[in-house]
Amino acid sequence: MTTARGSAWPEAADFGQPPSAADLERWADADRAARPTRLARVRERLAREGLDAYFGVRGENSRYLTGFELRDGEEKVAGHSGQFLLSGDQLVILADSRYAIQARTQAPEARLENVYGNFPERWPELVGSLGARRVGVEAGFVSHGLWTRLAEAEPSVELVPVEGWVEEIRAVKEPAELERVAAACAVGDRALATLLPSIRVGRTERDLALELEWLIRTGGAEALAFDPAVLAGPDAALPHGAPGERPIVEGQVLLFDFGAQVAGYRSDMTRTLFVGEPSPRDAEIHELVARAQAAAISGLEHAVAEGTPILGRAADALAREVIEAAGQGERFGHGLGHGIGLATHELPSLSRTAPADALLPSPTVFSVEPGVYLDGEMGVRIEDLIAFTRQAGRVERLTRFPSEAVILPA
Amino acid sequence: MTTARGSAWPEAADFGQPPSAADLERWADADRAARPTRLARVRERLAREGLDAYFGVRGENSRYLTGFELRDGEEKVAGHSGQFLLSGDQLVILADSRYAIQARTQAPEARLENVYGNFPERWPELVGSLGARRVGVEAGFVSHGLWTRLAEAEPSVELVPVEGWVEEIRAVKEPAELERVAAACAVGDRALATLLPSIRVGRTERDLALELEWLIRTGGAEALAFDPAVLAGPDAALPHGAPGERPIVEGQVLLFDFGAQVAGYRSDMTRTLFVGEPSPRDAEIHELVARAQAAAISGLEHAVAEGTPILGRAADALAREVIEAAGQGERFGHGLGHGIGLATHELPSLSRTAPADALLPSPTVFSVEPGVYLDGEMGVRIEDLIAFTRQAGRVERLTRFPSEAVILPA
Repeated sequence: MTTARGSAWPEAADFGQPPSAADLERWADADRAARPTRLARVRERLAREGLDAYFGVRGENSRYLTGFELRDGEEKVAGHSGQFLLSGDQLVILADSRYAIQARTQAPEARLENVYGNFPERWPELVGSLGARRVGVEAGFVSHGLWTRLAEAEPSVELVPVEGWVEEIRAVKEPAELERVAAACAVGDRALATLLPSIRVGRTERDLALELEWLIRTGGAEALAFDPAVLAGPDAALPHGAPGERPIVEGQVLLFDFGAQVAGYRSDMTRTLFVGEPSPRDAEIHELVARAQAAAISGLEHAVAEGTPILGRAADALAREVIEAAGQGERFGHGLGHGIGLATHELPSLSRTAPADALLPSPTVFSVEPGVYLDGEMGVRIEDLIAFTRQAGRVERLTRFPSEAVILPA
Repeated sequence: MTTARGSAWPEAADFGQPPSAADLERWADADRAARPTRLARVRERLAREGLDAYFGVRGENSRYLTGFELRDGEEKVAGHSGQFLLSGDQLVILADSRYAIQARTQAPEARLENVYGNFPERWPELVGSLGARRVGVEAGFVSHGLWTRLAEAEPSVELVPVEGWVEEIRAVKEPAELERVAAACAVGDRALATLLPSIRVGRTERDLALELEWLIRTGGAEALAFDPAVLAGPDAALPHGAPGERPIVEGQVLLFDFGAQVAGYRSDMTRTLFVGEPSPRDAEIHELVARAQAAAISGLEHAVAEGTPILGRAADALAREVIEAAGQGERFGHGLGHGIGLATHELPSLSRTAPADALLPSPTVFSVEPGVYLDGEMGVRIEDLIAFTRQAGRVERLTRFPSEAVILPA
């Protein structure tokens, strides 16, 4: 086991700088320039499937196609603001009076329609203005209640359930999207490096999670990608635990799973540290997980070097075989990884349950996060983000914090 | 205009203490004791409407009826975990392996069914185990995609759209629910009082919002009720603005709209302060809004004293008439208030668009938040939470921070 101790610890200065105002401007320009191409892809699909228009409600899809931004959770209070209609030649963004100025600023190419609780009443006129008779609707995100009200408001317009169209397009990343994921990774790397010296036996999960969050949000992120998980000892056996009042105990694992958001794009990383010398068993589990992760990354590098397409399922198997060979297969209950971008979890899926014919798209970015969990005792997960560009023969680790075991003094 | 200056400023010690461990335990006990009654209300409604079971997906409804908790936004990654089925004699909670331990702990009365991506395949067996032929489904929250898959998985079971049943029950508050809203209000009061001395010309909205958030989350709240709005000068004219890089300017308004969450229950308050002496016009607008709020509260007190039921619309009119009489009616574009509890916005609605026959329930708690917004110039909103108990003849302000104008040194 390679370990980092004392002066060998990573420090904030080892990692990339927070985004500058010039970066933010460059990314905004890149989005503006890319949106016509993104819209054209959806329009091609509309034409191919014989639909006249697309009704989108998912926040990430709206941001990607129109530029209109909602914060996480804001859709609960935003009404229809940010939802959009796209036809072959028009783009309409809905916003109520609270969001009208924002819609004009962020989605200047779209026609703004002021819509509030009266949306179903406005529906016939809105689809009429697009000349649409068959409308694809994001069925995985629109409520059944709204669907029914729209269908009743204009029975002559057919609603066609559509799922995954924009998500599939979003899985393929533009350069300025990858840059933002990398910038979010650097914010996370720096935050964890800054936190290291203040980790001590006796501090609680919740207390460390709050400090880590603070470091992320004052260190260049506009928001968290998700609430950080900080899990000590047996809590680390829960792949989805939330930080509680458990204090750090000497010799036990301490798992950090967290991410930052930079200009809309997310990072996601997990490190499992030791506070005090680990038991031989725990050190061995860490080494196994690190080995499984390294095997997956080198398998991906190999595929890229050969120019071979690779299935999401096959990527999962690269790490799973290592863990199974060590007799711990049953203790790796989740998939190897997930795409990331405007959403923390998106396509592609690297898992046993990924569709049997789903090749990894390219360029894309996804997590590689094997884990082994001993119920009630401990767990280890190591998670990095990988930018995967088959065409250019590149597999790049965007999270730069060392993945070797870090042993902190107790 | 009554103003607070120098030593007259509110201080943290003026307000209630953060919740203690004993408070949290008492509230958890109260929830456990209340759940059978809550479930019985839904069951009565099922019987009345001729349905055999209820399928719930909304997080707040699940927490209220089963005890299972998800954080804000967690439903996006939780799959079906926390969704539930209720029949006349059974309560089933769904959870995948990540959430199984949590479901057993938080919803011990429910039967746990381990369900992941295979939910539609499991549906026939699950509704079969309840002997259900007609199932009410939360149509405002279940996606059309899932609705369709469930309908196709078991065509012999009728899905009946249901909206607002649990929300209507939740609008009437139990004593331990009101206690928690009051505790969340006290966390907010203390946080703003603590922030006051560090507010200065030149600090930005975003910077103050982050500090306020920190004070809330380290001052007894388990979470924010929503992201704080801190809006300076002309930004305060946006009833739904987000804090940005605008710095505080001398003599201008500074609006804080924020809330805390304590044991699941939310607070929500708005104060509009002045940093440096306000212009006579701004001072007058503040005074008008304060007067409108006082009129609404005293109208509610009057109704309660008389024992007269009051419509949500009529409550709105109590404040609106004052603002209209001053010729500013056009500049008060939103409703007077909203109920609050497990969700930040819930029933009842105090607004012009509330249903014409919707009386305020009792006991309940809601915001009273008139505002006047001068586009591009400034805005004032004052928001308090009011516990309203008609039976006991009580109208109680739960937010205790003074609502008079506070003028800070520039």
